[in-house]
Amino acid sequence: MNRKIGKQTYELENKPVIIASGAFVGGKEAVGPFSNYFENIAVSDMMGEKTFEKAERRFFESALSSTLKDSNLHSSDLDYMVGGDILNQLVSANYTARDFQIPFVGVYGACSTMAESLAISAGLISSGIGSMVACLTGSHFSSAERQYRNPLEFGNQRPTYSQWTATGAGCCILSRSGKGPVISKIAFGKVTDYGVVDIANMGAAMAPAAYETLKSFFEDTKTGPDDYDLIATGDLGKLGSDVLRDLLQRDKIVLGKNYMDCGHSLFREEQKTFQGGSGAGCSAIVFSTYIMNKLKSKVFNKVLLVATGALMSTITNQQGDSIPCVAHLVEIDNV
Amino acid sequence: MNRKIGKQTYELENKPVIIASGAFVGGKEAVGPFSNYFENIAVSDMMGEKTFEKAERRFFESALSSTLKDSNLHSSDLDYMVGGDILNQLVSANYTARDFQIPFVGVYGACSTMAESLAISAGLISSGIGSMVACLTGSHFSSAERQYRNPLEFGNQRPTYSQWTATGAGCCILSRSGKGPVISKIAFGKVTDYGVVDIANMGAAMAPAAYETLKSFFEDTKTGPDDYDLIATGDLGKLGSDVLRDLLQRDKIVLGKNYMDCGHSLFREEQKTFQGGSGAGCSAIVFSTYIMNKLKSKVFNKVLLVATGALMSTITNQQGDSIPCVAHLVEIDNV
Repeated sequence: MNRKIGKQTYELENKPVIIASGAFVGGKEAVGPFSNYFENIAVSDMMGEKTFEKAERRFFESALSSTLKDSNLHSSDLDYMVGGDILNQLVSANYTARDFQIPFVGVYGACSTMAESLAISAGLISSGIGSMVACLTGSHFSSAERQYRNPLEFGNQRPTYSQWTATGAGCCILSRSGKGPVISKIAFGKVTDYGVVDIANMGAAMAPAAYETLKSFFEDTKTGPDDYDLIATGDLGKLGSDVLRDLLQRDKIVLGKNYMDCGHSLFREEQKTFQGGSGAGCSAIVFSTYIMNKLKSKVFNKVLLVATGALMSTITNQQGDSIPCVAHLVEIDNV
Repeated sequence: MNRKIGKQTYELENKPVIIASGAFVGGKEAVGPFSNYFENIAVSDMMGEKTFEKAERRFFESALSSTLKDSNLHSSDLDYMVGGDILNQLVSANYTARDFQIPFVGVYGACSTMAESLAISAGLISSGIGSMVACLTGSHFSSAERQYRNPLEFGNQRPTYSQWTATGAGCCILSRSGKGPVISKIAFGKVTDYGVVDIANMGAAMAPAAYETLKSFFEDTKTGPDDYDLIATGDLGKLGSDVLRDLLQRDKIVLGKNYMDCGHSLFREEQKTFQGGSGAGCSAIVFSTYIMNKLKSKVFNKVLLVATGALMSTITNQQGDSIPCVAHLVEIDNV
């Protein structure tokens, strides 16, 4: 039986193994700091399709196909797939699930969707609900821009505190047995809203959610930042990461060199994304490649993935609501 | 440990108990065939708000509040909440989770969201992840019309094969112990698409998903329709229910008098909803009131809830895609 620790954290008894992971990324992502870790790169971000939305779907399909293929697995080996995306009604994940004919559990946590998918799958697998499950999520810069902000053709200027939605999809295969890093703890986050209303400033909106989840996790587990080889937030960007450091510091919790934000790290400064990457694909592709690589090579043995998501819609924003955010946490260890 | 039966079904070892349930419904729903079962009715579908979207959120808050209050529970008793809705980015559920400060797991299965939430929560609770969890979902006719079809002010005519999005929210509280009907089996559905492209014809689009899930469940469990006191689909409407009966009949599976569709049953014919109710609120309010009432009074002792969802978006529809659908199944028993 799994066990609750403290207020919000669950320790898994039968720890699911991440037996495989991979990503399929866009051209801009491929030449960023993680270029050595991305093996599957799109020739064009349009993926041979006529619309950005259909292109995004191809990233999902390619991430799942290539991850399965690299591990000599077939889609029929999967009991179900857990995933979602930031397009309205999660259409990228939905249509991919249709094409692969795997039972499908659609989830939505905005940019936290990979961490949420890993947490749900890990919880279900640990209890015998499924023995092999795929977690799949991603995003596309161009489809996200036109859904959440402006169509690219409009040519608007982006504020310097904004981020750049990552183009790519990441996939993790969880199994009840096998070799690889394991998911040992999970924590679902509370929806946190400090009153930010500017939808271009996702970092400032989301940092409080990461703060609340991390603080509660450290309390629940009686640990601190130094107990982990890596603490990775999802896509706070540079500004959001600074806000998070500041919020934690007020509680005398100091994030050191073992802290990174997947969004802040995804692009080089000269790539002009301002605060860094974002989107459901951001932490998904960084976790499924770079972080998993370092876990498998035992450079990291104890990792916290704390992915944040901004849960507003364009409608709630237009109606004057502030931005509610969430951060889900997964601890991944080598045992 | 929970156990997989056949291809897609899981039998829960520690069966979660539905210790409480309730709904908060709109005026039109309140005068339909289930009028005797709805205790909490909105004075106005605007709920004192200025927009339909904010009104929808109030239904969610009221459903959760009244369900907790009726059972002498507090939101602090809940380990987390699982839910979603059919507005873009699930804003009704997100903002409700913010206001109640419960850890939140956002899920999306369109109109199948209540069944999906029950299945996920049941799976997690049965393994010790949480001891008390709320499942909350709903919909609002007016917000759904303007997001998916036309603004009400446009005054368009609805085709006779269309359905009417239910206004209301339903809530179920699951617990690891206590008195009440239990969730004994769950099955996540495959995304099924027989090629329907008309988004006014949800029943025809979704019926094949219900067919696939029910057929596979009967095979997995070696049971048939007669083994249950009630088989309830979510919101196929009259037309969709007829399609489902027809599809199953081809496999010599005959749905008898113990079959009902929550959507078809939600309104009277003179209420001019044509094929009946729909929306994430439809099966949620019918299950949380009428079906739970009959389970608690032992009129029903073995019930299948098979809620379907259409997983397209307006964008995929405009881009010529057909409508992928899913049906999640939950078996609820008196033990």
